[in-house]
Amino acid sequence: MNAEKIPDIIIGRLPIYLRALQHLSDTGVQTTSSQELGEIIGISAAQIRKDISQFGEFGKQGTGYSIPFLIERLRDILKVNKVWEVVIVGMGDMGHALARYNGYADRGFQIAMVFDNDPNKVGQKAGGLEILSTDVMVERIKQNRIKVAILATPASVAQAVTDQLVKAGVKSILNYAPISLNVPDDVHVQYIDPVAHLQRMTYYL
Amino acid sequence: MNAEKIPDIIIGRLPIYLRALQHLSDTGVQTTSSQELGEIIGISAAQIRKDISQFGEFGKQGTGYSIPFLIERLRDILKVNKVWEVVIVGMGDMGHALARYNGYADRGFQIAMVFDNDPNKVGQKAGGLEILSTDVMVERIKQNRIKVAILATPASVAQAVTDQLVKAGVKSILNYAPISLNVPDDVHVQYIDPVAHLQRMTYYL
Repeated sequence: MNAEKIPDIIIGRLPIYLRALQHLSDTGVQTTSSQELGEIIGISAAQIRKDISQFGEFGKQGTGYSIPFLIERLRDILKVNKVWEVVIVGMGDMGHALARYNGYADRGFQIAMVFDNDPNKVGQKAGGLEILSTDVMVERIKQNRIKVAILATPASVAQAVTDQLVKAGVKSILNYAPISLNVPDDVHVQYIDPVAHLQRMTYYL
Repeated sequence: MNAEKIPDIIIGRLPIYLRALQHLSDTGVQTTSSQELGEIIGISAAQIRKDISQFGEFGKQGTGYSIPFLIERLRDILKVNKVWEVVIVGMGDMGHALARYNGYADRGFQIAMVFDNDPNKVGQKAGGLEILSTDVMVERIKQNRIKVAILATPASVAQAVTDQLVKAGVKSILNYAPISLNVPDDVHVQYIDPVAHLQRMTYYL
Protein backbone atom coordinates (compact mmCIF):
# COMPACT_ATOMS: atom_id res chain seq x y z
CA MET A 1 0.00 0.00 0.00
CA ASN A 2 1.21 3.50 -0.80
CA ALA A 3 2.36 5.38 2.31
CA GLU A 4 0.03 8.24 1.36
CA LYS A 5 -2.98 6.02 1.85
CA ILE A 6 -2.28 4.58 5.31
CA PRO A 7 -5.45 5.09 7.40
CA ASP A 8 -5.26 7.82 10.05
CA ILE A 9 -5.94 5.35 12.87
CA ILE A 10 -2.75 3.48 11.93
CA ILE A 11 -0.76 6.71 11.59
CA GLY A 12 -1.82 7.46 15.16
CA ARG A 13 -0.18 4.24 16.37
CA LEU A 14 3.12 4.72 14.51
CA PRO A 15 4.53 7.27 17.02
CA ILE A 16 3.75 4.77 19.81
CA TYR A 17 5.67 2.05 17.96
CA LEU A 18 8.50 4.48 17.32
CA ARG A 19 8.69 5.45 21.00
CA ALA A 20 8.82 1.79 22.09
CA LEU A 21 11.41 0.90 19.44
CA GLN A 22 13.57 3.88 20.45
CA HIS A 23 13.34 2.75 24.06
CA LEU A 24 14.47 -0.78 23.12
CA SER A 25 17.25 0.66 20.97
CA ASP A 26 18.44 2.85 23.87
CA THR A 27 18.87 -0.29 25.97
CA GLY A 28 21.06 -1.83 23.25
CA VAL A 29 18.54 -4.26 21.72
CA GLN A 30 18.83 -4.79 17.93
CA THR A 31 15.81 -6.95 17.05
CA THR A 32 12.28 -7.34 18.38
CA SER A 33 9.04 -9.19 17.62
CA SER A 34 5.42 -8.15 17.36
CA GLN A 35 4.86 -10.13 20.59
CA GLU A 36 7.49 -8.16 22.51
CA LEU A 37 6.32 -4.82 21.11
CA GLY A 38 2.74 -5.76 21.93
CA GLU A 39 3.60 -6.48 25.56
CA ILE A 40 5.43 -3.16 25.92
CA ILE A 41 2.70 -1.10 24.28
CA GLY A 42 -0.45 -2.99 25.19
CA ILE A 43 -1.60 -3.59 21.60
CA SER A 44 -2.10 -7.10 20.20
CA ALA A 45 0.78 -8.66 18.25
CA ALA A 46 -1.60 -9.33 15.34
CA GLN A 47 -2.57 -5.64 15.17
CA ILE A 48 1.07 -4.57 15.20
CA ARG A 49 1.97 -7.01 12.41
CA LYS A 50 -0.97 -5.79 10.36
CA ASP A 51 -0.11 -2.12 10.90
CA ILE A 52 3.56 -2.53 10.05
CA SER A 53 2.79 -4.64 6.96
CA GLN A 54 0.86 -1.64 5.56
CA PHE A 55 4.09 0.03 4.59
CA GLY A 56 6.24 -2.85 3.40
CA GLU A 57 7.84 -6.14 4.37
CA PHE A 58 9.96 -5.79 7.50
CA GLY A 59 10.01 -8.84 9.73
CA LYS A 60 11.13 -12.26 8.64
CA GLN A 61 9.36 -15.28 10.06
CA GLY A 62 11.40 -16.40 13.06
CA THR A 63 13.95 -13.57 13.10
CA GLY A 64 11.72 -10.64 14.02
CA TYR A 65 12.12 -6.97 13.14
CA SER A 66 15.43 -5.13 12.80
CA ILE A 67 14.99 -2.26 15.27
CA PRO A 68 17.36 0.27 13.59
CA PHE A 69 15.77 -0.38 10.20
CA LEU A 70 12.21 -0.09 11.50
CA ILE A 71 13.05 3.11 13.42
CA GLU A 72 14.52 4.66 10.27
CA ARG A 73 11.50 3.68 8.18
CA LEU A 74 9.01 5.01 10.77
CA ARG A 75 10.94 8.28 11.03
CA ASP A 76 10.79 8.59 7.24
CA ILE A 77 7.06 7.91 7.12
CA LEU A 78 6.25 10.31 9.96
CA LYS A 79 8.68 12.89 8.46
CA VAL A 80 10.57 13.25 11.73
CA ASN A 81 13.91 12.39 10.10
CA LYS A 82 14.37 16.19 10.10
CA VAL A 83 13.87 18.78 12.84
CA TRP A 84 10.63 20.80 12.74
CA GLU A 85 10.61 24.22 14.34
CA VAL A 86 7.67 24.67 16.71
CA VAL A 87 6.11 27.74 18.32
CA ILE A 88 4.30 27.73 21.66
CA VAL A 89 1.54 30.30 22.22
CA GLY A 90 0.47 31.05 25.79
CA MET A 91 3.14 31.21 28.48
CA GLY A 92 1.11 30.19 31.52
CA ASP A 93 2.15 27.22 33.67
CA MET A 94 1.55 24.73 30.88
CA GLY A 95 3.34 26.84 28.25
CA HIS A 96 6.36 27.16 30.53
CA ALA A 97 6.37 23.43 31.24
CA LEU A 98 6.18 22.69 27.50
CA ALA A 99 8.95 25.19 26.70
CA ARG A 100 11.25 23.49 29.23
CA TYR A 101 10.17 19.92 28.37
CA ASN A 102 13.24 17.90 27.38
CA GLY A 103 11.42 15.18 25.42
CA TYR A 104 11.60 16.83 21.96
CA ALA A 105 15.27 16.12 21.29
CA ASP A 106 15.98 13.42 18.70
CA ARG A 107 12.26 13.03 18.06
CA GLY A 108 11.98 15.60 15.29
CA PHE A 109 11.07 18.87 17.03
CA GLN A 110 12.65 21.97 18.48
CA ILE A 111 10.89 24.86 20.20
CA ALA A 112 11.89 27.88 18.12
CA MET A 113 9.73 30.70 19.54
CA VAL A 114 7.30 31.30 22.39
CA PHE A 115 4.58 33.95 22.50
CA ASP A 116 2.27 35.59 25.02
CA ASN A 117 -0.09 38.58 24.87
CA ASP A 118 0.75 39.78 28.41
CA PRO A 119 3.17 42.79 28.26
CA ASN A 120 4.51 41.74 31.69
CA LYS A 121 5.63 38.38 30.30
CA VAL A 122 7.04 39.64 26.99
CA GLY A 123 10.83 39.90 27.21
CA GLN A 124 11.11 37.35 30.04
CA LYS A 125 12.68 33.96 29.46
CA ALA A 126 11.04 30.53 29.14
CA GLY A 127 13.09 27.44 28.44
CA GLY A 128 16.02 29.61 27.32
CA LEU A 129 13.89 31.58 24.84
CA GLU A 130 12.72 35.17 25.09
CA ILE A 131 8.95 35.44 25.26
CA LEU A 132 7.71 37.41 22.22
CA SER A 133 4.55 39.46 21.90
CA THR A 134 1.63 37.89 20.04
CA ASP A 135 1.53 41.23 18.15
CA VAL A 136 4.47 39.99 16.04
CA MET A 137 3.36 36.34 15.96
CA VAL A 138 1.92 36.12 12.44
CA GLU A 139 4.88 37.99 10.97
CA ARG A 140 7.55 35.91 12.74
CA ILE A 141 5.89 32.59 11.91
CA LYS A 142 5.59 33.58 8.24
CA GLN A 143 9.21 34.78 8.08
CA ASN A 144 10.49 31.50 9.48
CA ARG A 145 8.01 29.34 7.53
CA ILE A 146 7.01 27.52 10.72
CA LYS A 147 4.30 24.90 10.24
CA VAL A 148 3.84 23.47 13.75
CA ALA A 149 2.35 25.19 16.83
CA ILE A 150 1.45 24.23 20.37
CA LEU A 151 -1.53 26.15 21.77
CA ALA A 152 -1.47 26.62 25.54
CA THR A 153 -3.71 29.66 25.91
CA PRO A 154 -6.92 29.90 27.96
CA ALA A 155 -9.93 28.43 26.13
CA SER A 156 -11.47 31.90 25.80
CA VAL A 157 -8.86 33.09 23.29
CA ALA A 158 -7.92 29.73 21.71
CA GLN A 159 -10.04 30.11 18.57
CA ALA A 160 -8.85 33.68 17.89
CA VAL A 161 -5.21 32.62 18.28
CA THR A 162 -5.87 29.60 16.05
CA ASP A 163 -7.25 31.85 13.32
CA GLN A 164 -4.01 33.85 13.46
CA LEU A 165 -1.85 30.71 13.37
CA VAL A 166 -3.73 29.49 10.31
CA LYS A 167 -3.29 32.90 8.67
CA ALA A 168 0.45 32.63 9.38
CA GLY A 169 0.66 29.30 7.55
CA VAL A 170 0.64 26.83 10.47
CA LYS A 171 -0.64 23.39 9.40
CA SER A 172 -0.34 21.34 12.62
CA ILE A 173 -1.70 22.51 15.99
CA LEU A 174 -1.34 20.65 19.27
CA ASN A 175 -4.11 22.09 21.43
CA TYR A 176 -3.93 22.11 25.24
CA ALA A 177 -6.92 24.46 25.59
CA PRO A 178 -10.06 22.50 26.59
CA ILE A 179 -12.05 23.56 23.51
CA SER A 180 -12.68 22.19 20.01
CA LEU A 181 -11.09 24.34 17.31
CA ASN A 182 -12.43 25.18 13.86
CA VAL A 183 -9.73 25.00 11.20
CA PRO A 184 -9.60 24.60 7.38
CA ASP A 185 -9.37 21.05 5.98
CA ASP A 186 -5.63 21.27 5.34
CA VAL A 187 -4.84 22.06 9.01
CA HIS A 188 -4.55 19.20 11.51
CA VAL A 189 -5.37 19.56 15.20
CA GLN A 190 -4.55 17.12 17.98
CA TYR A 191 -6.02 17.60 21.46
CA ILE A 192 -4.35 17.02 24.80
CA ASP A 193 -7.02 16.94 27.47
CA PRO A 194 -5.87 15.21 30.67
CA VAL A 195 -9.44 14.99 31.97
CA ALA A 196 -10.61 13.06 28.89
CA HIS A 197 -7.86 10.51 29.59
CA LEU A 198 -8.85 10.30 33.26
CA GLN A 199 -12.51 9.82 32.29
CA ARG A 200 -11.57 7.01 29.94
CA MET A 201 -10.09 5.15 32.90
CA THR A 202 -12.76 5.76 35.54
CA TYR A 203 -15.12 3.72 33.35
CA TYR A 204 -13.16 0.66 34.51
CA LEU A 205 -13.17 1.53 38.23
CA MET B 1 -25.43 -4.17 24.61
CA ASN B 2 -24.48 -4.23 28.26
CA ALA B 3 -22.47 -1.16 29.29
CA GLU B 4 -19.81 -3.49 30.73
CA LYS B 5 -19.06 -4.83 27.28
CA ILE B 6 -18.56 -1.61 25.33
CA PRO B 7 -15.26 -1.92 23.40
CA ASP B 8 -12.36 0.14 24.76
CA ILE B 9 -12.01 2.07 21.50
CA ILE B 10 -15.56 3.40 21.95
CA ILE B 11 -14.98 4.18 25.63
CA GLY B 12 -12.05 6.30 24.48
CA ARG B 13 -14.38 8.42 22.35
CA LEU B 14 -17.04 8.98 25.03
CA PRO B 15 -15.05 11.67 26.91
CA ILE B 16 -14.67 13.54 23.60
CA TYR B 17 -18.44 13.39 23.04
CA LEU B 18 -19.01 14.50 26.63
CA ARG B 19 -16.66 17.46 26.23
CA ALA B 20 -18.39 18.60 23.03
CA LEU B 21 -21.87 18.15 24.55
CA GLN B 22 -20.84 20.10 27.65
CA HIS B 23 -19.52 22.86 25.42
CA LEU B 24 -22.84 23.00 23.52
CA SER B 25 -24.76 22.94 26.80
CA ASP B 26 -22.66 25.84 28.17
CA THR B 27 -23.72 27.91 25.17
CA GLY B 28 -27.39 27.22 25.97
CA VAL B 29 -28.14 24.60 23.30
CA GLN B 30 -30.57 21.81 24.28
CA THR B 31 -30.52 19.39 21.35
CA THR B 32 -27.95 18.30 18.80
CA SER B 33 -27.48 15.83 15.94
CA SER B 34 -24.79 13.33 15.05
CA GLN B 35 -23.99 15.63 12.09
CA GLU B 36 -23.42 18.66 14.33
CA LEU B 37 -21.38 16.66 16.86
CA GLY B 38 -19.35 15.17 14.04
CA GLU B 39 -18.48 18.59 12.67
CA ILE B 40 -17.37 19.81 16.10
CA ILE B 41 -15.30 16.73 16.90
CA GLY B 42 -14.08 15.63 13.48
CA ILE B 43 -15.60 12.12 13.65
CA SER B 44 -18.14 10.91 11.09
CA ALA B 45 -21.83 11.22 11.98
CA ALA B 46 -22.28 7.50 11.23
CA GLN B 47 -19.55 6.57 13.72
CA ILE B 48 -21.09 8.78 16.40
CA ARG B 49 -24.56 7.25 15.86
CA LYS B 50 -23.08 3.75 16.03
CA ASP B 51 -21.10 4.52 19.20
CA ILE B 52 -24.02 6.10 21.01
CA SER B 53 -26.39 3.30 20.01
CA GLN B 54 -24.11 0.86 21.89
CA PHE B 55 -25.58 1.99 25.17
CA GLY B 56 -29.24 2.55 24.38
CA GLU B 57 -31.69 4.44 22.21
CA PHE B 58 -31.18 8.18 22.50
CA GLY B 59 -31.88 10.13 19.37
CA LYS B 60 -35.21 10.19 17.58
CA GLN B 61 -35.24 10.42 13.80
CA GLY B 62 -35.63 14.08 12.97
CA THR B 63 -35.45 15.48 16.49
CA GLY B 64 -31.82 14.66 17.38
CA TYR B 65 -30.29 14.03 20.80
CA SER B 66 -31.36 15.70 24.04
CA ILE B 67 -28.09 17.22 25.28
CA PRO B 68 -28.84 17.21 29.04
CA PHE B 69 -30.02 13.58 28.88
CA LEU B 70 -27.02 12.41 26.85
CA ILE B 71 -24.60 14.28 29.16
CA GLU B 72 -26.16 12.61 32.19
CA ARG B 73 -26.00 9.17 30.61
CA LEU B 74 -22.36 9.61 29.52
CA ARG B 75 -21.40 10.82 33.01
CA ASP B 76 -23.06 7.72 34.45
CA ILE B 77 -21.27 5.36 32.07
CA LEU B 78 -17.87 6.98 32.60
CA LYS B 79 -18.54 7.16 36.38
CA VAL B 80 -17.80 10.87 36.51
CA ASN B 81 -21.18 11.69 38.08
CA LYS B 82 -19.15 11.74 41.32
CA VAL B 83 -15.85 13.46 42.19
CA TRP B 84 -12.71 11.28 42.18
CA GLU B 85 -9.79 12.35 44.33
CA VAL B 86 -6.53 12.39 42.37
CA VAL B 87 -2.89 12.54 43.48
CA ILE B 88 -0.09 14.06 41.41
CA VAL B 89 3.43 12.68 41.85
CA GLY B 90 6.37 14.80 40.69
CA MET B 91 6.22 18.56 41.26
CA GLY B 92 8.38 19.75 38.39
CA ASP B 93 7.05 22.25 35.84
CA MET B 94 4.46 19.82 34.51
CA GLY B 95 3.31 18.73 37.98
CA HIS B 96 2.84 22.35 39.01
CA ALA B 97 0.93 23.12 35.81
CA LEU B 98 -1.32 20.10 36.41
CA ALA B 99 -1.89 21.03 40.06
CA ARG B 100 -3.02 24.52 39.02
CA TYR B 101 -4.96 23.37 35.93
CA ASN B 102 -8.55 24.59 36.21
CA GLY B 103 -10.13 22.08 33.82
CA TYR B 104 -11.01 19.38 36.39
CA ALA B 105 -14.01 21.16 37.91
CA ASP B 106 -17.40 19.68 37.01
CA ARG B 107 -15.72 16.91 35.04
CA GLY B 108 -15.40 14.40 37.88
CA PHE B 109 -11.97 15.03 39.41
CA GLN B 110 -10.29 16.97 42.19
CA ILE B 111 -6.59 17.10 42.99
CA ALA B 112 -6.41 15.91 46.61
CA MET B 113 -2.66 15.55 47.25
CA VAL B 114 0.63 16.30 45.51
CA PHE B 115 3.95 14.56 46.19
CA ASP B 116 7.63 15.04 45.46
CA ASN B 117 10.81 13.34 46.67
CA ASP B 118 12.84 16.57 46.84
CA PRO B 119 13.13 17.79 50.49
CA ASN B 120 13.43 21.35 49.19
CA LYS B 121 10.00 21.12 47.56
CA VAL B 122 8.22 19.30 50.40
CA GLY B 123 6.20 21.78 52.47
CA GLN B 124 5.93 24.31 49.64
CA LYS B 125 2.61 25.01 47.93
CA ALA B 126 1.36 23.93 44.52
CA GLY B 127 -2.13 24.80 43.33
CA GLY B 128 -3.14 25.60 46.93
CA LEU B 129 -1.95 22.23 48.25
CA GLU B 130 1.08 21.52 50.43
CA ILE B 131 3.64 19.32 48.64
CA LEU B 132 4.02 16.08 50.62
CA SER B 133 7.03 13.77 50.73
CA THR B 134 6.88 10.61 48.64
CA ASP B 135 8.01 8.86 51.87
CA VAL B 136 4.40 9.07 53.11
CA MET B 137 2.79 8.53 49.68
CA VAL B 138 1.72 4.89 49.97
CA GLU B 139 0.33 5.43 53.47
CA ARG B 140 -1.65 8.58 52.56
CA ILE B 141 -3.09 7.09 49.38
CA LYS B 142 -4.19 3.95 51.24
CA GLN B 143 -5.73 5.96 54.10
CA ASN B 144 -7.77 8.02 51.67
CA ARG B 145 -8.58 5.09 49.36
CA ILE B 146 -7.46 7.10 46.33
CA LYS B 147 -7.65 5.21 43.04
CA VAL B 148 -6.45 7.77 40.49
CA ALA B 149 -2.95 9.20 40.06
CA ILE B 150 -1.15 11.49 37.64
CA LEU B 151 2.53 10.67 37.16
CA ALA B 152 4.71 13.67 36.27
CA THR B 153 8.11 12.42 37.42
CA PRO B 154 11.25 12.06 35.27
CA ALA B 155 11.24 8.87 33.19
CA SER B 156 14.12 7.46 35.27
CA VAL B 157 11.97 7.01 38.40
CA ALA B 158 8.55 6.53 36.75
CA GLN B 159 8.45 2.72 37.04
CA ALA B 160 9.57 2.73 40.69
CA VAL B 161 6.91 5.31 41.58
CA THR B 162 4.33 3.33 39.61
CA ASP B 163 5.14 0.19 41.62
CA GLN B 164 4.46 2.17 44.81
CA LEU B 165 1.22 3.60 43.45
CA VAL B 166 0.03 0.10 42.56
CA LYS B 167 1.00 -1.11 46.04
CA ALA B 168 -1.06 1.75 47.50
CA GLY B 169 -4.15 0.62 45.58
CA VAL B 170 -4.16 3.05 42.65
CA LYS B 171 -6.02 1.60 39.62
CA SER B 172 -5.80 4.45 37.06
CA ILE B 173 -2.55 6.20 36.16
CA LEU B 174 -2.21 9.12 33.76
CA ASN B 175 1.45 9.04 32.73
CA TYR B 176 3.30 12.16 31.55
CA ALA B 177 6.72 10.48 31.76
CA PRO B 178 7.91 9.45 28.27
CA ILE B 179 8.21 5.76 29.14
CA SER B 180 5.98 2.67 28.93
CA LEU B 181 4.93 1.41 32.37
CA ASN B 182 4.49 -2.19 33.51
CA VAL B 183 1.39 -2.62 35.66
CA PRO B 184 -0.89 -5.51 36.69
CA ASP B 185 -3.89 -6.29 34.48
CA ASP B 186 -6.36 -4.52 36.78
CA VAL B 187 -4.49 -1.19 36.57
CA HIS B 188 -5.12 1.12 33.61
CA VAL B 189 -2.52 3.50 32.22
CA GLN B 190 -3.06 6.33 29.77
CA TYR B 191 -0.12 8.16 28.21
CA ILE B 192 0.24 11.83 27.47
CA ASP B 193 3.16 12.32 25.13
CA PRO B 194 3.03 15.64 23.25
CA VAL B 195 5.71 14.51 20.80
CA ALA B 196 3.69 11.46 19.74
CA HIS B 197 0.81 13.84 18.89
CA LEU B 198 3.15 16.15 16.97
CA GLN B 199 4.59 13.18 15.04
CA ARG B 200 1.11 12.05 14.11
CA MET B 201 0.56 15.40 12.39
CA THR B 202 3.92 15.80 10.61
CA TYR B 203 2.96 12.75 8.53
CA TYR B 204 0.50 15.04 6.74
CA LEU B 205 2.91 17.93 6.17
